[in-house]
Amino acid sequence: MPKKIRLGILGGGGDSLIGVLHRVASFINDNYEIVGAVFNPNFEDSVDFAKEIDIPTNRIYKDFDTLVEEELKLPEDERIQVCSILTPNFLHFPMAKKLLENGFHVICEKPMTTTYDEAIILQETLAKAGTVFAVTHTYTGYPMVRQMREMIKEGALGKIHKVDAQYYQGWINPIIHDKEKRSTVWRLDPKKAGISSCMGDIGVHAFNMIEYTTGLQVKSLLCDFNYLYADNQMDVDGTVLVRMGEHVKGLVRASQVATGEENNLTIAIYGEKGGLRWEQENPNYLYKLNDPEPLQVLKPGHAYNSKLSLDGTKLPPGHPEGIFDAMANIYLGVARAIRGEEYNSGEFPTMTDGVRGLNFIENTVASHKQGNIWVDMD
Amino acid sequence: MPKKIRLGILGGGGDSLIGVLHRVASFINDNYEIVGAVFNPNFEDSVDFAKEIDIPTNRIYKDFDTLVEEELKLPEDERIQVCSILTPNFLHFPMAKKLLENGFHVICEKPMTTTYDEAIILQETLAKAGTVFAVTHTYTGYPMVRQMREMIKEGALGKIHKVDAQYYQGWINPIIHDKEKRSTVWRLDPKKAGISSCMGDIGVHAFNMIEYTTGLQVKSLLCDFNYLYADNQMDVDGTVLVRMGEHVKGLVRASQVATGEENNLTIAIYGEKGGLRWEQENPNYLYKLNDPEPLQVLKPGHAYNSKLSLDGTKLPPGHPEGIFDAMANIYLGVARAIRGEEYNSGEFPTMTDGVRGLNFIENTVASHKQGNIWVDMD
Amino acid sequence: MPKKIRLGILGGGGDSLIGVLHRVASFINDNYEIVGAVFNPNFEDSVDFAKEIDIPTNRIYKDFDTLVEEELKLPEDERIQVCSILTPNFLHFPMAKKLLENGFHVICEKPMTTTYDEAIILQETLAKAGTVFAVTHTYTGYPMVRQMREMIKEGALGKIHKVDAQYYQGWINPIIHDKEKRSTVWRLDPKKAGISSCMGDIGVHAFNMIEYTTGLQVKSLLCDFNYLYADNQMDVDGTVLVRMGEHVKGLVRASQVATGEENNLTIAIYGEKGGLRWEQENPNYLYKLNDPEPLQVLKPGHAYNSKLSLDGTKLPPGHPEGIFDAMANIYLGVARAIRGEEYNSGEFPTMTDGVRGLNFIENTVASHKQGNIWVDMD
Amino acid sequence: MPKKIRLGILGGGGDSLIGVLHRVASFINDNYEIVGAVFNPNFEDSVDFAKEIDIPTNRIYKDFDTLVEEELKLPEDERIQVCSILTPNFLHFPMAKKLLENGFHVICEKPMTTTYDEAIILQETLAKAGTVFAVTHTYTGYPMVRQMREMIKEGALGKIHKVDAQYYQGWINPIIHDKEKRSTVWRLDPKKAGISSCMGDIGVHAFNMIEYTTGLQVKSLLCDFNYLYADNQMDVDGTVLVRMGEHVKGLVRASQVATGEENNLTIAIYGEKGGLRWEQENPNYLYKLNDPEPLQVLKPGHAYNSKLSLDGTKLPPGHPEGIFDAMANIYLGVARAIRGEEYNSGEFPTMTDGVRGLNFIENTVASHKQGNIWVDMD
Repeated sequence: MPKKIRLGILGGGGDSLIGVLHRVASFINDNYEIVGAVFNPNFEDSVDFAKEIDIPTNRIYKDFDTLVEEELKLPEDERIQVCSILTPNFLHFPMAKKLLENGFHVICEKPMTTTYDEAIILQETLAKAGTVFAVTHTYTGYPMVRQMREMIKEGALGKIHKVDAQYYQGWINPIIHDKEKRSTVWRLDPKKAGISSCMGDIGVHAFNMIEYTTGLQVKSLLCDFNYLYADNQMDVDGTVLVRMGEHVKGLVRASQVATGEENNLTIAIYGEKGGLRWEQENPNYLYKLNDPEPLQVLKPGHAYNSKLSLDGTKLPPGHPEGIFDAMANIYLGVARAIRGEEYNSGEFPTMTDGVRGLNFIENTVASHKQGNIWVDMD
Repeated sequence: MPKKIRLGILGGGGDSLIGVLHRVASFINDNYEIVGAVFNPNFEDSVDFAKEIDIPTNRIYKDFDTLVEEELKLPEDERIQVCSILTPNFLHFPMAKKLLENGFHVICEKPMTTTYDEAIILQETLAKAGTVFAVTHTYTGYPMVRQMREMIKEGALGKIHKVDAQYYQGWINPIIHDKEKRSTVWRLDPKKAGISSCMGDIGVHAFNMIEYTTGLQVKSLLCDFNYLYADNQMDVDGTVLVRMGEHVKGLVRASQVATGEENNLTIAIYGEKGGLRWEQENPNYLYKLNDPEPLQVLKPGHAYNSKLSLDGTKLPPGHPEGIFDAMANIYLGVARAIRGEEYNSGEFPTMTDGVRGLNFIENTVASHKQGNIWVDMD
Repeated sequence: MPKKIRLGILGGGGDSLIGVLHRVASFINDNYEIVGAVFNPNFEDSVDFAKEIDIPTNRIYKDFDTLVEEELKLPEDERIQVCSILTPNFLHFPMAKKLLENGFHVICEKPMTTTYDEAIILQETLAKAGTVFAVTHTYTGYPMVRQMREMIKEGALGKIHKVDAQYYQGWINPIIHDKEKRSTVWRLDPKKAGISSCMGDIGVHAFNMIEYTTGLQVKSLLCDFNYLYADNQMDVDGTVLVRMGEHVKGLVRASQVATGEENNLTIAIYGEKGGLRWEQENPNYLYKLNDPEPLQVLKPGHAYNSKLSLDGTKLPPGHPEGIFDAMANIYLGVARAIRGEEYNSGEFPTMTDGVRGLNFIENTVASHKQGNIWVDMD
Repeated sequence: MPKKIRLGILGGGGDSLIGVLHRVASFINDNYEIVGAVFNPNFEDSVDFAKEIDIPTNRIYKDFDTLVEEELKLPEDERIQVCSILTPNFLHFPMAKKLLENGFHVICEKPMTTTYDEAIILQETLAKAGTVFAVTHTYTGYPMVRQMREMIKEGALGKIHKVDAQYYQGWINPIIHDKEKRSTVWRLDPKKAGISSCMGDIGVHAFNMIEYTTGLQVKSLLCDFNYLYADNQMDVDGTVLVRMGEHVKGLVRASQVATGEENNLTIAIYGEKGGLRWEQENPNYLYKLNDPEPLQVLKPGHAYNSKLSLDGTKLPPGHPEGIFDAMANIYLGVARAIRGEEYNSGEFPTMTDGVRGLNFIENTVASHKQGNIWVDMD
């Protein structure tokens, strides 16, 4: 195995949770070493954070542009190879673009950009750059989600005819009913959070999962949002009817006001031969519905799983792994791609996933705004 | 307690499953005695069946009209008081109508009629008759569904803003993919089965459940069906977006091709203060989602349940009751109504439920056929 | 099918829960008709109860002896055929004995007798009588328990080497910690309740289940009780180590002070080829543990189930049946036996089960009292 | 925060799973840096492994003694501060002892030693050394196990009267029935694996959990093993009755032949006021049984959890963490102890846990060998 990949981090300082998730994920398979960073907008905070997590401060830069500039001065075998972009959403696009233009690999938090147009530009940029690009639809890193994909690919369900994905959370409920709160929180301010709250933040994950697991693409969609209050401009709940082929229909349901729900992402796929169900909060169980045979419950680490699934499990059956391990699996795939090793296309979500996500979000808004009509995906 | 109510049965002979369900339900609380019947179209079969289940054959009639005619000749205190209609769907309306017109109480299987127009006529007939009428949306008889209704009524969730009901089965899957089968099975023949398969048979239950539990009414809906094959004229899968008030949105999902699913009816209701979830296949668990307090799991028979819920439980906690007991609870409510005793409006589904069900079914078809547009419920 | 079996009921009047359970169970499969009874010690109460549940009062007798005497005067084809004994425990033995001696069939609530000696006498009485005798270990009536038995019999687990049965309840907890309460409740008074509380009331069910499902017999046992208080003379919790053959070991765990538990009876059986797990509170799921294949979840009503299991299911998969249906299955088996029809030995628990239950209870007490030593079952 | 703690690793090279677990756990909270190691008995393998995981090879030593010797030559602020012992069991004692005698902190895999005598010696050694010592009973690192401990400590269950811990695995099943295999596998060879297989490897975890969560100590025990075959000298299954105080009874059940089970560790504790249940394979759910209130399901990350529990959760509710995170929590506690920071006594298992574990194992063997008699713990 070659030496550890030199990782740069943008954002994720202070008490950032996403920072912890990416940092731990990068460590888990012994593949990455953090060599440079801009953890915080404030340089001093950035340096303090580097000290706090005890990494060298010599390549903590005052801002993103300086990082790029200074790193490019370093010999190639010392230079940051890949940057993880964990900054506020509106910075994802300019940072990713510049990094790609300068030959860096990129791991980008979701949403990849704030608009579909930006996403298309980024896609073109990547095509020229030829580097590795991943967008962190983390849930695709779970071994049983990977197993779902591989089983469907191998025909375990036969022809798919029905998909149903749900992502229900309740966290905005305590905010939305208070006029003061709902008008001030950045998540519900279109200027700061983009055109969609619920669909943009979580619905897009559910959308990604149905494309990831089935290998099919949504062709057209019809969306209805719920804003809950007339003065609220952002969707906090929505349902999207989707068509993924002739007579292949389904739906994406998302809510941030499903009071009491935590992070209830579930995927159900049905085909001619059977069904598959998975729930994010119990990620180590995959339910195979058979007719007329008994239901089966698949779990990680068993030899009956596919290579792609087993690749994402570190311990024997019965030792539950979680969200950090899912993200670590994505980092592992990226590492293989950077090193030019062979890897399965399902090991990490790519630019295509990012572009489609933005296309989805904008289309849900377009459908809703035009009175819940069918709109076509690109 | 007065003497047992004299019950007549229409249909339900031979190896009819619905026959078993109603018969057992009528026995469970010692309230009914079967005194007359037309179990089968063939008189001899009817008599044989009466012998098989060992009830007197003297009031087994050769057909429905004879039953009405002969029973009316009997003194009122011997005459059938209530008839359970378990015949093929198209007979529900004429039988119910004639029974009401002749002063009988009626327990009618679902769908109450085959068209909304018939339903309206029946409603008018009932208004004149002033007798008791129940339509057997059986699932409303479960103690924890009743508890859900009572908790919502008492404000446990605060203002409701989101409802999500699912009814997934897989039984048509083995039929639908075979051209021969799908063109011959009566359930997929509009002439025999009415205008809708999936929504008419099971979607309407899910619809009923969200109105039953929330006490709200669906105002408008938008529906998309899946027929799976161009030559199939009946929906085997569908999703319905519903609006139950300003900013109160939700959906009804139904499928007969969710391969491997058995009878997966689930209801989730979310409001300002919390959520409630219930699953028909595990009917003795009601999940109360609280934020920020821990999830609670309510079970039947405990003193913390409402009167309406406790009324439907016969044994102490931990002794699971099931679908027969749910139907028995509906029969119990009807018995009380027939006897003029006090009862809770949630004890059995009424004409209103039947009318709304037909209204729902026809509107889902209308919405779909017009290109998935919003249509208003009456 | 012959006419309904003429059933007599002893006890179970007033608001008796066991009365409801047996009465409903007798109705469910259209096999029984209640023709005579002594519902209550007080004759007037008995008659009132008969009126309340609306059955003829002409064969409501003033006491048990009168019932026997008068019924014997009736022609055989009018006479009660089988009596269900639902009286206080100490009456089970004399009533059952007299009934058998006079040619009646008997369905006896558990415990069959209050001592092992009585049980042996009853067994001898039955041998002479040659009638049908059932003791209501109700849980054996569940379709998935029957499936467990049949799968094990057919070798699905290979040679059994480990059994683990649990029956945890919490209902005595609010009583046991109060000196006044624990010294007055009849259940904790050895004079009224026999030699064991926890093991006699519920542990014996768990014991019965491991013998029923495995087809093996407990050879020897070692028991440790917990009385919780020095002044309490009855076990409220206990663990029993059991040996069911060479190197076939297991345990029966029972508690009435597992605070918050309702009726948590679970059975796990492990053998060379796999394991089976079942839980009474979710009776429609049977877990088949396979190694190295995925876990399977079997449910009632599917064609993959055994005849004995399918025989106990009335509706298609996904329509949950419960404890009333389990008891009804036992009544169904008894009806077949009474009619001289063919039946599977697993359809109802017999005298052998009753005798072994008493043997078990007395041995647990003996083991505990002698300092938790091994004692042999007869 | 001070600089990262300098960690040495003994064992855990090659494809060692325990190596991955400890390495990842040490990374997760940014507290440790691996600076030295003897990964493998073979020096070259050790160096190769260091290269593979890309850590400096200059302090990879040829053997343990050399590591100690060379590290002691380094200035104190460069020297390894704590060693993780992941070697075969028989090396735990001599390594730990020497490390303690030379002033190193120690994280030792379980079992801490191979005999109770060694454990006592090690305890004395530690007393003199005054350094930090942890034994990795990993499951105590789960947030909901910690929550269980804190709730019990704060009286949520009142006085405890019943404990029931289970650790069922099935992995030895495919080995034990084959005479050739069972006589050659090192785990079933007393010379290599110590005096107990099942109780020593997994039963001791269950034992540790009941002491960890209740704060009580087992006073005496009675144990029955199952060897399955006469020629097998090691227990592969066993049940232990335990007494933890007057009228406080319980049991530890462990099996390696519970065919099909993976890593099914469950703990149930009952007291006057309620019960608590937890299952290792679904570690993010803690069930609080209340009487007469509804069951509650507690999950990590919510403000209703104790400080000790919240301390072990990195992400918001609904983001499942797993076994790596549990071990990371133990490493975090050890880091605090090494740095002299304040920490809760429940943050990592200590020498006391190690000593009691060995005492338990030896007593189970003693009890079984003497014919399943009660023996006292020290």
